[in-house]
Amino acid sequence: MEVLSGRRQPVPPIWMMRQAGRYLPEYREVRAKAGGFLELCFTPEFAAEVTLQPIRRFNFDAAIIFSDILVIPYALGRSVRFEVGEGPRLDPLDTREKVETLAQRADFSKLEPVYEALRRVRRELDARIALIGFCGAPWTVATYMVAGQGTPDQALARMMAYRHPDAFSKIIDVLVANSIQYLLGQLKAGADVLQIFDTWAGALPPRQFERWSIEPTRRIVEGVRKVVPDAKIIGFPRGAGALLPAYVSATGVDAVSIDWAAEPSLIRERVQSRVAIQGNLDPLALIAGGAALDQAVDDVLANYADGRLIFNLGHGIQPETPITHVEQMLKRVRAYKG
Amino acid sequence: MEVLSGRRQPVPPIWMMRQAGRYLPEYREVRAKAGGFLELCFTPEFAAEVTLQPIRRFNFDAAIIFSDILVIPYALGRSVRFEVGEGPRLDPLDTREKVETLAQRADFSKLEPVYEALRRVRRELDARIALIGFCGAPWTVATYMVAGQGTPDQALARMMAYRHPDAFSKIIDVLVANSIQYLLGQLKAGADVLQIFDTWAGALPPRQFERWSIEPTRRIVEGVRKVVPDAKIIGFPRGAGALLPAYVSATGVDAVSIDWAAEPSLIRERVQSRVAIQGNLDPLALIAGGAALDQAVDDVLANYADGRLIFNLGHGIQPETPITHVEQMLKRVRAYKG
Repeated sequence: MEVLSGRRQPVPPIWMMRQAGRYLPEYREVRAKAGGFLELCFTPEFAAEVTLQPIRRFNFDAAIIFSDILVIPYALGRSVRFEVGEGPRLDPLDTREKVETLAQRADFSKLEPVYEALRRVRRELDARIALIGFCGAPWTVATYMVAGQGTPDQALARMMAYRHPDAFSKIIDVLVANSIQYLLGQLKAGADVLQIFDTWAGALPPRQFERWSIEPTRRIVEGVRKVVPDAKIIGFPRGAGALLPAYVSATGVDAVSIDWAAEPSLIRERVQSRVAIQGNLDPLALIAGGAALDQAVDDVLANYADGRLIFNLGHGIQPETPITHVEQMLKRVRAYKG
Repeated sequence: MEVLSGRRQPVPPIWMMRQAGRYLPEYREVRAKAGGFLELCFTPEFAAEVTLQPIRRFNFDAAIIFSDILVIPYALGRSVRFEVGEGPRLDPLDTREKVETLAQRADFSKLEPVYEALRRVRRELDARIALIGFCGAPWTVATYMVAGQGTPDQALARMMAYRHPDAFSKIIDVLVANSIQYLLGQLKAGADVLQIFDTWAGALPPRQFERWSIEPTRRIVEGVRKVVPDAKIIGFPRGAGALLPAYVSATGVDAVSIDWAAEPSLIRERVQSRVAIQGNLDPLALIAGGAALDQAVDDVLANYADGRLIFNLGHGIQPETPITHVEQMLKRVRAYKG
């Protein structure tokens, strides 16, 4: 929270994307009890528990609510299934005719369990630890809605955006409006910070990035701040590269998450000069461990810790990551003398 | 050739990556005759024929020899198979022990059919049309050699590079040395220009990008120019984003190919100011056609045609692309008034 409010910390705060996850035995235990992935998201007791697990184990500086970016399509009445080892499956929204049938407003009662999980976590969480709520950015959520699943290069959604921009706009508009409500609901339930995940932003050419990533995110930030003027928001247009400065100026986010391929001098001079940076350790370095991990941690600190930095990964932690490597990273970050 | 020698052309020259390919019925016919993909690459008559087909049909300003980046592992004695609808399969080189068994020198007699195809094409090709030879960059070729196939995020090769940098260096060194010989062989056989494809460069963090993409490419450029001082070389570190200026300064290439997500002002100010640019139409815009294609073509021209530009795609043309859309693009580019 300090970093997001403009105050650099001598030791950067740290958390990890997907920190509540399969690399933890205690997570796997709860997951087995819950049954399916959506059951885990939508059972407040379980969702709160797995959200708190990495805090207890590692004493991270932030907790992120355990949920998924596809809960919005789910609340819009789309069929959303998570099949083991397959990733998400939705009923594809791949024609103009189908887009016409899309509900305008989500059934927010379906998201009540997420709010309840947030309330539970906030009650149990030390006040100095930030609780992060989140949603997917409309572009990224739309890529799954259009294709009905994850796709290489997000080709189906990009194609609809080229061929039928009006139909595609309708999907985006519905996602913008409902994401604003959803994020406001999360703030009300106890979230201190919000993150907007645009995982597939990097697939867009500049004109499309402006239209489908920047502009919808800007509207969400504006919509949330209309109700909660001091809402703290982190954007993550993954793979945006040299388009990041434009994203930061236009959207008004307080921080951006950066991926592991980001170029340090551009980030420092044209991004970190204006907002806080979150990132960007390569999750594979965390799996590798040893000297490679030490060097990767040192690189992140050398590149960004002179400015406002929230130490994090460049993408989510992977299931095969050894817990001892997470401890090695934490120790090294917390020993940083800035 | 003019553009690569530093002279901007009023109408940018144009060709397409993977222009000899499945979107052309005449290609599919030869492919069926040849049988397998490697048979097509290694039968000079067929390889020359499919290389020339897009020139006859579209009168492009350059022909690129029909071949594959995996012919180097093949000549190194690795098993390389192309299974229909599956992509390439190799015997994985995924342990330090296996790396010890890697041959130091390719059997260049296996690549003689590529040279013969180049000689045939050069004989039949109008003198004003450039003939492009190519190889894969060591990093990208190594990602296939280590994993034995294409992989999301190139995780296996990145992991070997983190855990066993010495073993990984051995693969890279072998690829550097043999790529130099292979490129020199292509020049001798009639190639006017060389392109080095680093398709997976974008997966690398900055330190690894410097070590595994820039440095091996620099050594290849240097090695080729030691024998052919005025060799014209195009680099394509796909996804390099803001790392492109460093790539250009360090490698000494005459041009870089840029992907469709490149940010125009960075490219103009820090890349095109020093070398020629090749790119960067989104291949999906070419499938979409219509107004979306016109706008995408106009964006490339508006962004880059004031400087040295070779009009191209941001990645290879896809099989489902309608031929009429290629014609639409060509007409629009050639009508450009610069």
